[in-house]
Amino acid sequence: MQYYPAPEEVIEMSDLISAVESAFVDHGAGRSVMPPKVYVNLPGGDFRTMPSYIPSLQTAGVKIVNVHPENRKAGLPTVMAVTILLDPPTGKPVAVLNATTLTDLRTGASAAVATRALTHKKSGTIGIIGSGRQADSGLLALSHVVEPEEVLVWSRSPTHADEFVQRYSHLPIQSTDIESAAGADILLTVTPSKTPLIKDEWISDGAHINAVGADAPGKQELDPAILRRADVFVDDMDQATHSGEVNVPIREGIYTPSQIRGTLGGVLTGAIPKPTPGTITVFDSTGLSITDLAAAHLAIGKGTIIDLPFMQNANTPGISGVRE
Amino acid sequence: MQYYPAPEEVIEMSDLISAVESAFVDHGAGRSVMPPKVYVNLPGGDFRTMPSYIPSLQTAGVKIVNVHPENRKAGLPTVMAVTILLDPPTGKPVAVLNATTLTDLRTGASAAVATRALTHKKSGTIGIIGSGRQADSGLLALSHVVEPEEVLVWSRSPTHADEFVQRYSHLPIQSTDIESAAGADILLTVTPSKTPLIKDEWISDGAHINAVGADAPGKQELDPAILRRADVFVDDMDQATHSGEVNVPIREGIYTPSQIRGTLGGVLTGAIPKPTPGTITVFDSTGLSITDLAAAHLAIGKGTIIDLPFMQNANTPGISGVRE
Repeated sequence: MQYYPAPEEVIEMSDLISAVESAFVDHGAGRSVMPPKVYVNLPGGDFRTMPSYIPSLQTAGVKIVNVHPENRKAGLPTVMAVTILLDPPTGKPVAVLNATTLTDLRTGASAAVATRALTHKKSGTIGIIGSGRQADSGLLALSHVVEPEEVLVWSRSPTHADEFVQRYSHLPIQSTDIESAAGADILLTVTPSKTPLIKDEWISDGAHINAVGADAPGKQELDPAILRRADVFVDDMDQATHSGEVNVPIREGIYTPSQIRGTLGGVLTGAIPKPTPGTITVFDSTGLSITDLAAAHLAIGKGTIIDLPFMQNANTPGISGVRE
Repeated sequence: MQYYPAPEEVIEMSDLISAVESAFVDHGAGRSVMPPKVYVNLPGGDFRTMPSYIPSLQTAGVKIVNVHPENRKAGLPTVMAVTILLDPPTGKPVAVLNATTLTDLRTGASAAVATRALTHKKSGTIGIIGSGRQADSGLLALSHVVEPEEVLVWSRSPTHADEFVQRYSHLPIQSTDIESAAGADILLTVTPSKTPLIKDEWISDGAHINAVGADAPGKQELDPAILRRADVFVDDMDQATHSGEVNVPIREGIYTPSQIRGTLGGVLTGAIPKPTPGTITVFDSTGLSITDLAAAHLAIGKGTIIDLPFMQNANTPGISGVRE
């Protein structure tokens, strides 16, 4: 078994986008196994357990990831993650990865895959609502699939928005009011909001929205009127209806699962037609275990590796070690 | 984050039995959080993801464990496991443990806890059906709660049964036919059988059966007539009806969940009366995540520890590492 303390250091974003896209294709074609993630509430947050198996990569495993909104006060990220990979034919654990930054990156890559699959845009304005780590990875990934004409950033904290702008001063970027950012051609929402932040009237015709923040029951970022006027695609039907952007409107009875156009994987496999230009599209992203495995699979065998002893005496009969 | 390659080396069985009993008490009192385990099928086997949270131990985490019946041919154990522990108030991963042998040990300890809670026996004959690793840990644990007057072992492989007997030559032990072993005062069944091995007429009045082998849909070791004549206790109602000894009879309609007397935790808390002497009792053990956490919690901070770097640069804004 091997440990990877910083697997993100060996990953190229373009490779990650391709790997994540392949995972969505497998998902759309029914060639992967992925039970819905399981939530356990903790004091001040929760953790999610996300198992899956991707036959085409000959890999299986589990990501374990927490969400503790107050962690920044303790000098820790809100979200931290570990991924365990298993060898499918034997079930043996082969790798443990620090998946904290990988989680941000695969989330950004998923938004990039959706933007390329659901829109016809090669360039445009990018609006970013929120300025946490997923804002960084989202902008990085989106820049690989659309030429950013202008990047408009809004954050509840103007200081954080300004810091974000400074980090990307090589791009045409500025911090703005929420309405201006929300009016962009391509929108990325990455807040932990539990009430709609984005009003329907702010959304431009033909806009594409990557709704990333809502990933647990009770969370939502968009006015439900946006969902009713858009073509809505989800990453996974079970997860999105349980915990994605659509979860609150569905529970309140103002939106129904039958109004969802389908999955991103369905569009990628061609089972669902790509929306025509001018359509408002929403990608409801909850985060799939298979994208975590695809990201981990890209990293293993490269970079810093710490060897961990595991089952050296596998064939010893009886139970050794324990003291009677 | 720290890695423990052999946590079983620092655990005393008597301490483990106490820790597992406390976990069952918490479970019975509704003081732990444990969603049912999630199964993912793989070529030649499966893996299970088992998350939980035990407030009284201030620990949370996940065990990941495979079952690949043909692994012995490849020189690997059938079952291998890794446990990840998280710090509940922050969700930070704090420990990774090789939980392979720990899994065997906590399974044995659970049978010992059940034997003590459900019977009035201080001594008696012990019958063991099967001779794999769980037979070893089961005998070790049961010897802590009952004085073994005689140990009778049956295995499909007479060679394995003889090897097992040799390992415990300090005890009054012998390999026997299955009927003799099944007639013991305290029975431990630890086979992967999918058809009943143990006939009703072999079971002695007042016997206690620890039915451990059935831990997945389709598995069963006991003639269902035994269940109907016994007081049946489960480790967890959801898991047992899904994948325990009762799963096949329930699916076939010859046993119903309402016939189950209750959980082991319910007896330990006093919510369910202890069966009277002379009652045939069955403990249907599927394996609880909370017992894995309790075992892991006993081991951390002791023995061989490998420090793993995790989130040194937690406060760096933006996404470092990935190459654009």
